[in-house]
Amino acid sequence: MASTTTYKVSGMTCGHCVSAVTAEVSSIPGVSDVSIELESGAVTVNSTDELDEATVRAAVEEAGYELVP
Amino acid sequence: MASTTTYKVSGMTCGHCVSAVTAEVSSIPGVSDVSIELESGAVTVNSTDELDEATVRAAVEEAGYELVP
Repeated sequence: MASTTTYKVSGMTCGHCVSAVTAEVSSIPGVSDVSIELESGAVTVNSTDELDEATVRAAVEEAGYELVP
Repeated sequence: MASTTTYKVSGMTCGHCVSAVTAEVSSIPGVSDVSIELESGAVTVNSTDELDEATVRAAVEEAGYELVP
């Protein structure tokens, strides 16, 4: 079932950081949209099915940032 | 004559910013090396001839940052 989840990511400081996280998270199978608010670190992910948080965490870390619990 | 000049650039917040400035300044004809210290904003440029500051300023602005006087 389609799902929207907001995660919090730390360490993003500029538009390039936002682009890097957007690119990695967008590449997760099933993700249809990613929107990020730089100041708060909020990363909102729309997906066709519920995502495994570990998968999202891995993508964020691949981009060089951290998922905040 | 070979020249080394250090400029100060404001607005760089992360490694992506450093990469963007490095790429733009490196593309100036005659530039042989660019090294950047993120925390201080110091951008040290080696070139085969003395550079016009306006050229460096334009490259920094093209990357989205500002040369500090």
